[in-house]
Amino acid sequence: MSFKSDTLAERMEHAHHPIRKLYPLAEEIKKSGVEIYNANIGDPVPYLGTAKYIVKAYCKALKDGKASYSRSPGDFEFLDEIAKRYKRLYNLDINSSRIFATHGVSEALIFLIESLIEKGRGAVVFNPYYPLYASTLKLFGGTIVLSTLNEEEGWAPSKEDLEGKIKKAKDEGVDLKFILVTNPSNPTGSMCSRKDLEDVVEVAKNNDLLVVSDEIYDEMILVKEKMTCIGEVAKGVPHMIMNGLSKNWGATGFRIGWAIIPEEDEGSKKLREGVGNLATMRLSASTPAQIAGIEALRNVKAHQRFLRYMVRNIRERAEFMQKRLNEINGVSCQKAKGAFYLFPKIDLSRTKFKDDDEFCTELLRKEHVWVTKGSGFGLGNHLRSTALPPVEVLEKVAQGIENLMRA
Amino acid sequence: MSFKSDTLAERMEHAHHPIRKLYPLAEEIKKSGVEIYNANIGDPVPYLGTAKYIVKAYCKALKDGKASYSRSPGDFEFLDEIAKRYKRLYNLDINSSRIFATHGVSEALIFLIESLIEKGRGAVVFNPYYPLYASTLKLFGGTIVLSTLNEEEGWAPSKEDLEGKIKKAKDEGVDLKFILVTNPSNPTGSMCSRKDLEDVVEVAKNNDLLVVSDEIYDEMILVKEKMTCIGEVAKGVPHMIMNGLSKNWGATGFRIGWAIIPEEDEGSKKLREGVGNLATMRLSASTPAQIAGIEALRNVKAHQRFLRYMVRNIRERAEFMQKRLNEINGVSCQKAKGAFYLFPKIDLSRTKFKDDDEFCTELLRKEHVWVTKGSGFGLGNHLRSTALPPVEVLEKVAQGIENLMRA
Repeated sequence: MSFKSDTLAERMEHAHHPIRKLYPLAEEIKKSGVEIYNANIGDPVPYLGTAKYIVKAYCKALKDGKASYSRSPGDFEFLDEIAKRYKRLYNLDINSSRIFATHGVSEALIFLIESLIEKGRGAVVFNPYYPLYASTLKLFGGTIVLSTLNEEEGWAPSKEDLEGKIKKAKDEGVDLKFILVTNPSNPTGSMCSRKDLEDVVEVAKNNDLLVVSDEIYDEMILVKEKMTCIGEVAKGVPHMIMNGLSKNWGATGFRIGWAIIPEEDEGSKKLREGVGNLATMRLSASTPAQIAGIEALRNVKAHQRFLRYMVRNIRERAEFMQKRLNEINGVSCQKAKGAFYLFPKIDLSRTKFKDDDEFCTELLRKEHVWVTKGSGFGLGNHLRSTALPPVEVLEKVAQGIENLMRA
Repeated sequence: MSFKSDTLAERMEHAHHPIRKLYPLAEEIKKSGVEIYNANIGDPVPYLGTAKYIVKAYCKALKDGKASYSRSPGDFEFLDEIAKRYKRLYNLDINSSRIFATHGVSEALIFLIESLIEKGRGAVVFNPYYPLYASTLKLFGGTIVLSTLNEEEGWAPSKEDLEGKIKKAKDEGVDLKFILVTNPSNPTGSMCSRKDLEDVVEVAKNNDLLVVSDEIYDEMILVKEKMTCIGEVAKGVPHMIMNGLSKNWGATGFRIGWAIIPEEDEGSKKLREGVGNLATMRLSASTPAQIAGIEALRNVKAHQRFLRYMVRNIRERAEFMQKRLNEINGVSCQKAKGAFYLFPKIDLSRTKFKDDDEFCTELLRKEHVWVTKGSGFGLGNHLRSTALPPVEVLEKVAQGIENLMRA
């Protein structure tokens, strides 16, 4: 019982970002002067930059002296512009007092889980999932219940599987609080159909669960299908929308996101109270970045121009990569409908590698190709490659995978 | 057991910022068009602005495209400049890999407590204290042990009291992890002498506790005495330094701070591992703000110029206010040596008010003077006034207090 001998709280065994394991090896290779073909990190900025008009707005905010703390829930004008965005894109009427500005979706996720989850409680996450969902849930003592996505059907959720997993968890005494959807999905690049979302909402309603939708890629749509915001199908059912500037505006490093809890049921009110209180405990999100966010959302024309450029480039890269990966024996890859990821299945039985962890480590060591292992997202025998680098680099990535599949 | 009926996790009863109670009343008064004399919030920016050279550096960072995620522990160059600052100001040799960039000291505090504290554990905080210490400790299940500062001796810590409180807590089975010092202090404006800090470090060492020092005001020194950084007196003893750009650079809304854990004992290593892991779970702090921080720290001349201007103004206001408050019957106020707060004692037995909460509410309602109740900082019969507004406003604040003391 002392600082030295028994330092960290028990929860800390879950505090990590599970997909960062290869960083030391990658840094070692880089130091030796060898080029790495990097399709690892989901940051569009190094490849496609930031929308220039928001850089300008950010500088203006700074020059105008916007350097005080802002209101803890967020700058009024910024929250108003967020509300208007949802009217414009999804015809939703959201009261801006139901919105919170956060340090990115990461903080929105922490606020959600910190508010709702403790030992004995849990949440449903679709598998494969974004790794921080699992580690944050566990950090706060929660149980993660996985519902399997159907790869062959473009990673669609299965109502039957979802209902079955919830029943099982309840039977085991887990007090479930929410179902978490990622739409479009990291890591799969899939997008939920309206019908899929309606099913999820119905299951949530029947089980008195909150539906949370992480929609950080909601304007990076690579196909003709329409994106459905959870707010469109969850009217009257408690739900929470998470989003931000990071991806749709190419501004990951600004760390500005938002959480919306629009409904008026008792649970939603209490959750807003909780999130609001946690927000006061870190005083405020970045003020000049929020002021930049006002213009980011208000100048729709400039944003559309940036998005067209982003989506055109990502679509080209994703289409190339999907086709190229499917040409490799033992590899099969679903089409990416949104975001900028591909999540191919690899048939390891054809190789000398016992799992995707070994495969990815060797891929980096030998081929200098850096992708992320599927098991980091809860599903072995898969890899996640971004579709961000230029086609020439993606070809190197695919070639590396092909070489290793033959080895 | 459902989302609606039993929403928030148990910890959430502690999630709040205890000194924000009067906000709704203040907003109501403002809406009615009446001017409020505000000495409530510790934000220098509305009164004294931001150092211009860092605004320029921030814009340059944005124009240079610094909008990607940064490394989770912080940008290398920024961390290097932080290390150099401690060499320059305190002659400390700190390896920059022992430093973490955070969303302000608020996040550094959360990382510390989240890493170390859980049910059965606790920490020692000097009373009066910054309110978020207590609420964050309780949020993560911890026990707060208060050691009384000696008001008559300029709010000095007492070695005997500290030892006694630690012994008592240990006897009661509390597993203590750290002692938290605020130097200079919010709310008292006091500064610890080197001898005081040596005593605290000795007690920490004898009890195998970490010493944490929140030094966010370390360059806002209003007297001739020298500020002592905890690093100067805790060599070989586990310690952690928290600081940032908010106050010394007038940049509260940038949300950039840092945590330093410089020692090589097992506890410090584990704490660094914990803080580093929590840092990966929110990806990174603001990248352009960190890049601005490089210049903030590097351009010593420009910073000195800004500090001289800040300190000159705050000193004048603090000296005026201390003198003015001491002229009021039933009010006595210690000299502020650092930061920008005054923490006068008020003799409520001379008034009709039963406590400082009632006094402050009536002060706002009737006199339109907004200060913070001492009990929000753990000590009743006191008020906290900032020394930030111009002397004319501070005179109104003092006049309001005087009127109420007579009422």
